[in-house]
Amino acid sequence: MLPPDATVAVVMAMAAEAAPTVERLGLIACSSHVAALPFRWYEGEVGGRHVVVAVNGRDERHGVDNIGTNPAVLNTWLTVERWHPGVVVSAGTAGGFAALGGEIGDLYLSQRDLVFHDRRIAIPGFDEYGHGRYPSLDVAAEAQRIGAKLGVVSTSNSLDWPDLDAAVMAAHGAAVKEMEAAAVAWVCWLTGTPVFALKAITDLVDHPAGTAEQFVANLGVATERLAAGLHALLDPD
Amino acid sequence: MLPPDATVAVVMAMAAEAAPTVERLGLIACSSHVAALPFRWYEGEVGGRHVVVAVNGRDERHGVDNIGTNPAVLNTWLTVERWHPGVVVSAGTAGGFAALGGEIGDLYLSQRDLVFHDRRIAIPGFDEYGHGRYPSLDVAAEAQRIGAKLGVVSTSNSLDWPDLDAAVMAAHGAAVKEMEAAAVAWVCWLTGTPVFALKAITDLVDHPAGTAEQFVANLGVATERLAAGLHALLDPD
Repeated sequence: MLPPDATVAVVMAMAAEAAPTVERLGLIACSSHVAALPFRWYEGEVGGRHVVVAVNGRDERHGVDNIGTNPAVLNTWLTVERWHPGVVVSAGTAGGFAALGGEIGDLYLSQRDLVFHDRRIAIPGFDEYGHGRYPSLDVAAEAQRIGAKLGVVSTSNSLDWPDLDAAVMAAHGAAVKEMEAAAVAWVCWLTGTPVFALKAITDLVDHPAGTAEQFVANLGVATERLAAGLHALLDPD
Repeated sequence: MLPPDATVAVVMAMAAEAAPTVERLGLIACSSHVAALPFRWYEGEVGGRHVVVAVNGRDERHGVDNIGTNPAVLNTWLTVERWHPGVVVSAGTAGGFAALGGEIGDLYLSQRDLVFHDRRIAIPGFDEYGHGRYPSLDVAAEAQRIGAKLGVVSTSNSLDWPDLDAAVMAAHGAAVKEMEAAAVAWVCWLTGTPVFALKAITDLVDHPAGTAEQFVANLGVATERLAAGLHALLDPD
């Protein structure tokens, strides 16, 4: 359940993922950044709450958005340190599974815990550390309220999913495959901050069309759904 | 070339990797930590320089050291923010390649750039972002001075190396496989801090014995070599 009155920080990777949300929630870009770092923050009041959207920004070396777990860690840390949010949302686009009922444009809220599927460390203790399993806030009531599905969200640093990754996702019972949530959850676990994920499906992992092709075709629809879902989540009226 | 007089920060993952270095360099544990975070710092003077060793600490959820890229990012950020080092060293143990002349106990200094081999993102621009390629300080002179080999250091979040990872490492010309250096280098690149890696070989990737088994058997020898190598690097006299 979303803690009442607390600041909500929404951590997002790509500018294109965040733009519809920033516009829909009427947030304003913060003028103060951390020197030299690419992260950008937007804030405002939504449904009586203070809401901050934290975006990973661009990697100037390669000219693309800072996706994946490493920027998610640093962005989450800087956001928690600056705003002390009562809850963090890892929000963005993701892959779904047709075999589990996933469809393009679906919204998923995270169930149980946030896991990694690409950290294989076959030494006792380190194997479980690799999977992460940092707990998700129980948002079953919110899922029902906003019409989202519930599913285990699993994270890796790759867009593809070779057999090794697929086997780990299956073992996790993953319904959502993306690239940041478990890293966000790790920092939240360290800092004692409740966390969950909200993901909009751009592509189906078990569909014959390529992931990159589906992602590009469906990014617009999915990010509008994500913005609407966040709005409904934060402002019930 | 190591910048003269600058503070040197050495970022390490495991307590067992760091202990011989902390002892050999005569460093003292810093009493101030960042609240709730597991990272630990040790500092002192070595060869007239201020040296800080930053260790990732333990994951209390799983009872093991914080290895891999995510803790490396946060530790490096906190270390750069606190001490503004003139150079950062990603130091630790690693896998080598017998086919490239690697032997157990070898010391390697990083050559050219620090790369990832497990971030596959097949979208133009993001593909190169995935590989990272954050530049290494040129430490060829130091390699000759301390008797280290030079090689490309490649990073992933897994102890194993499936065919996909092996192909990327081969394309990078990687001579050293480990789990933190490119993540440390990303934060250094963001903050304009020169960086290189020093790695001691615990296991040979292309050896029939299992990685975990070799790692455990050779950890003691490799970490002593690492400590001696760091000492020689920082205190030429």
